[in-house]
Amino acid sequence: MRLFACILAMAAAIGPAWAQDLPSWNEGPIKDAIIDFVTAATTEGGPGWVEPEDRIATFDNDGTLWTEHPVYFQFMFVSDRIRHLAPRHPEWKLQPPFKGILEGDTKAVAASGEHGVTELMAVTHAWMTAEAFEEIVSDWISTARHPRFDRPYDSLIYQPMVELMDYLRDNGFQTWIVSGGGADFMRPWADDAYGIPPQQIIGSQIAEDYQIIEGKPQFMRKPQVFFVDDGPGKPVGIHRHIGKRPVMAFGNSDGDYQMLEYTTSGDGPSLAMIVHHTDGDREYAYDRDTHIGRLDKAMTDAPAKGWHLIDMARDWSTIYPEP
Amino acid sequence: MRLFACILAMAAAIGPAWAQDLPSWNEGPIKDAIIDFVTAATTEGGPGWVEPEDRIATFDNDGTLWTEHPVYFQFMFVSDRIRHLAPRHPEWKLQPPFKGILEGDTKAVAASGEHGVTELMAVTHAWMTAEAFEEIVSDWISTARHPRFDRPYDSLIYQPMVELMDYLRDNGFQTWIVSGGGADFMRPWADDAYGIPPQQIIGSQIAEDYQIIEGKPQFMRKPQVFFVDDGPGKPVGIHRHIGKRPVMAFGNSDGDYQMLEYTTSGDGPSLAMIVHHTDGDREYAYDRDTHIGRLDKAMTDAPAKGWHLIDMARDWSTIYPEP
Ligand SMILES: [Ca+2]
Ligand SMILES: [Ca+2]
Repeated sequence: MRLFACILAMAAAIGPAWAQDLPSWNEGPIKDAIIDFVTAATTEGGPGWVEPEDRIATFDNDGTLWTEHPVYFQFMFVSDRIRHLAPRHPEWKLQPPFKGILEGDTKAVAASGEHGVTELMAVTHAWMTAEAFEEIVSDWISTARHPRFDRPYDSLIYQPMVELMDYLRDNGFQTWIVSGGGADFMRPWADDAYGIPPQQIIGSQIAEDYQIIEGKPQFMRKPQVFFVDDGPGKPVGIHRHIGKRPVMAFGNSDGDYQMLEYTTSGDGPSLAMIVHHTDGDREYAYDRDTHIGRLDKAMTDAPAKGWHLIDMARDWSTIYPEP
Repeated sequence: MRLFACILAMAAAIGPAWAQDLPSWNEGPIKDAIIDFVTAATTEGGPGWVEPEDRIATFDNDGTLWTEHPVYFQFMFVSDRIRHLAPRHPEWKLQPPFKGILEGDTKAVAASGEHGVTELMAVTHAWMTAEAFEEIVSDWISTARHPRFDRPYDSLIYQPMVELMDYLRDNGFQTWIVSGGGADFMRPWADDAYGIPPQQIIGSQIAEDYQIIEGKPQFMRKPQVFFVDDGPGKPVGIHRHIGKRPVMAFGNSDGDYQMLEYTTSGDGPSLAMIVHHTDGDREYAYDRDTHIGRLDKAMTDAPAKGWHLIDMARDWSTIYPEP
């Protein structure tokens, strides 16, 4: 077993990065920048060398590793849960924000503001054990389907990014998710989808209590925010969980600004990239004018900061894995 | 480099656990229990098999990996910092809890209660960047000396536990620290001392803000508690950072009760052990009657729970590494 893994590892070590490592990336400056960085990072004695323990790459999730339109998939999960629970809550027909969800009136939901979001989160994410929540998420991800693509949400992951993460791991990098979404919403499916185990998933978290329920230790989820892993929260989450600066970071919106900034502010080599959604045919096209995944300041500052824009239409030959 | 590591790994894989893996452990039921568990965990197809990704072992730090008497070493750090800063704070001579520290009057410090502790933490742990704090801790650990043993604190680690963690890693286990002490207090030296990188250190944390200071991203430490990783906080910290139940846990006090309970409540194989401080000659002897590292309820319940007590005097042939 171990010997077999070893032989594979040696085979992988024989040459530098081959083009076939990233088959869904078109030739061009972005693919070159990735391969050049990784080749330099793994060339001992060279100026771009990165010690193996410092090879840390962080990835935003929504819009960077999977699609986030027409709305964040975690919000689709919330809507589906509300609809599923509605028969037991006839009062919701009259009560915002539930009324808005049930009637598909997103403006009414938005108008319910922070209080509305808190109520939705409490009903769909809290007052249950971590185990129960994990089961609900797993059920949902295996049954729900995206309205436009009619495919499971976890098949709407970006094939080029999956290849990139594999390629990085083959070159001794740790791949971490650093998402504004809920850590416990991603953990049930992220290992299968991306090859990222639960301990390398940083995300927003709600309050949890350790309790013995029917003789078994459980984590009771409570409707209070414990940590928001977005914007300046992303480097803080990285510092809390990883305890060192990444050398690579990938994001797609202004919520990733500080993560990219932190990653590229070290003395050594670093690489930051932004997935620019330019492909309305195969996926979606948006940047400065969207309510989901707004990319404005980070795009403006990218050239001065040395951050690369991945042009989805130009740089990716494939968007999603084969169904 | 990779090939060399590979040959080493293959050499390590050739046989089962040899006695020479744990030279500082005396023969007896505890050493047998460890080797039996690990042998079974790595025997594919056997009843004790643990999937490689589930081989997670968690270790308390104070009193489990290093000495914690006469007081927690992090408290020694606080005292030393207060004394170091005192010339700039003449008012401390009259002001508790600082007065108590400066006069070596531990009772007065204790009498200042939670408010006193908060004041001490604010002065010694906060209102500085994470980078500055790391430097202060690194300086301290390389210069301060334990009052009884006249050795650096990071040399007062338990040689048998260092060997145990190496042995576990050789068998595909991840080794994690789950300590009531500060994560940022341990990270600067734990990799050298234990071979545990920063991302596998879970501990208590204070509030941090991401700020740009003189053009550089920094984490500003603030005098508010963010998370207390002790007692029921330990399984919560494990859940937040690792996202799955460990199969092995090692502690030494009632503050580890819930971590051991959580670890041993799964359906699969698990092993929990408590370091029992029985050796007043070579280290310290204490359990139910101490203010530092009190072991009472966990010792009472250990037999019923199947938790093993490591008898330091009986089970360890060596306590500390050779100076
Ligand atoms: Ca995003
Ligand atoms: Ca302890």
